[in-house]
Amino acid sequence: MNDHLKNCLEARDYNAITHACIQWIRDWFQQNGPDSPAVIGISGGKDSSAVAALCVEALGRDRVFGVMMPNGVQCDIDVSKRVVQHLAIPHATINIKDSVDAVKRTVLEGIGGEALANQVNINLPPRIRMATLYAVSQNRNGRVSNNCNRSENFVGYSTIFGDAAGDFSPLGNLTVAEVKCVGRCLGLPEEFVEKPPADGLSDRTDEDALGFTYEALDTYILTGWCPDEALKEKMEKRHQANLFKLRPMPEFEF
Amino acid sequence: MNDHLKNCLEARDYNAITHACIQWIRDWFQQNGPDSPAVIGISGGKDSSAVAALCVEALGRDRVFGVMMPNGVQCDIDVSKRVVQHLAIPHATINIKDSVDAVKRTVLEGIGGEALANQVNINLPPRIRMATLYAVSQNRNGRVSNNCNRSENFVGYSTIFGDAAGDFSPLGNLTVAEVKCVGRCLGLPEEFVEKPPADGLSDRTDEDALGFTYEALDTYILTGWCPDEALKEKMEKRHQANLFKLRPMPEFEF
Repeated sequence: MNDHLKNCLEARDYNAITHACIQWIRDWFQQNGPDSPAVIGISGGKDSSAVAALCVEALGRDRVFGVMMPNGVQCDIDVSKRVVQHLAIPHATINIKDSVDAVKRTVLEGIGGEALANQVNINLPPRIRMATLYAVSQNRNGRVSNNCNRSENFVGYSTIFGDAAGDFSPLGNLTVAEVKCVGRCLGLPEEFVEKPPADGLSDRTDEDALGFTYEALDTYILTGWCPDEALKEKMEKRHQANLFKLRPMPEFEF
Repeated sequence: MNDHLKNCLEARDYNAITHACIQWIRDWFQQNGPDSPAVIGISGGKDSSAVAALCVEALGRDRVFGVMMPNGVQCDIDVSKRVVQHLAIPHATINIKDSVDAVKRTVLEGIGGEALANQVNINLPPRIRMATLYAVSQNRNGRVSNNCNRSENFVGYSTIFGDAAGDFSPLGNLTVAEVKCVGRCLGLPEEFVEKPPADGLSDRTDEDALGFTYEALDTYILTGWCPDEALKEKMEKRHQANLFKLRPMPEFEF
């Protein structure tokens, strides 16, 4: 890790931040669902694991419900299972493949053609996960967590109305490096904290798809430091192109 | 119509507002998708009909794509068909029933139990419509319209991440009565402008479900006038309870 990022992380007290986040979740539920469980899509990655661990601390494990949503065969589903076992939270597995396939088939029948654009294959599964998670949640008067972190939000690495959805966002202001700090404060095993994030669609990790590392991105977000002008431009370009995902929907005004 | 609302509507020039809205759509596409079609879910109601007519004026009929999405049998589907015929826009029909049923079945299998809560039956179809509409849109690099009006937004009569989703909102600042004015300026037949809005799930209209009329609501929104304190309280209560749908997702900050 570069010194700029290291110094920045060392200057902050992530134990205190973790406890403040737990209290924020507790307060939010007190206001917005005093009897509701937190319903969390568990991917096996550090973000959903950290959110689940935070909610266990805030609400107690019986008020956390983890939902694993593989799309057909998910090669790293075992990690998700170990997360819910480690946290000992109630959970369910719902395979989204049939639902994704039904949308694809009916769309193709409706508009004609042989195959759908690759963007559909990327963004449809997260939207079906959202619809599935809200169905689970509404069935038990739950509240759905958003598990996006600040680094993903900055470059818009999420599906709008898919994994970008949710009722409350514990990690939206914490970069990837900071989520790892919080995960360690929560006692999450390194296996979950350090798992390279991937979209599960290919062999590529998020970092392969983005074309830069989260370390470079986090350093730029937190300190502004980026010695490589071309890289900085690449990060800023993605940021600008995806700002619409963070902003309110544009409305005609008069 | 009561005099308060009538006077308020007469004081505004809806021809000018209609033209400003057309220009706003044209400008928005110029910035956000100069070659993209507007992809519009067509319900047969006045809102989607008005949005489609506005987009035809702004972009030309070949850059508008209407998608009818019945859930099984939709008894008023003929109205939707007449809308796309009247506007002469390219369109497709995609029945969402198989997709909705796939989500319901897999959720029930995953969490156990006999039946899902009624809220799921209400909110799942709009979310599947959103996922379907974005699949169609992404397949042709389109932009999805949000068809919610100001009255619906005020009382939160929409499904978050369902029909509340979209890329641009032409009607978000126009009450029901004003959308009708705009619809008439656009030359829409009365059949489409005056169709009582209904969720298509039951025999109930929106007004039955809300417990007050859009006329009372529009008058209150536009002029503040409401002679019935209990009714005013009912409208304000719904407004407050659903404000979260309009606000940014709450994030932990430190």
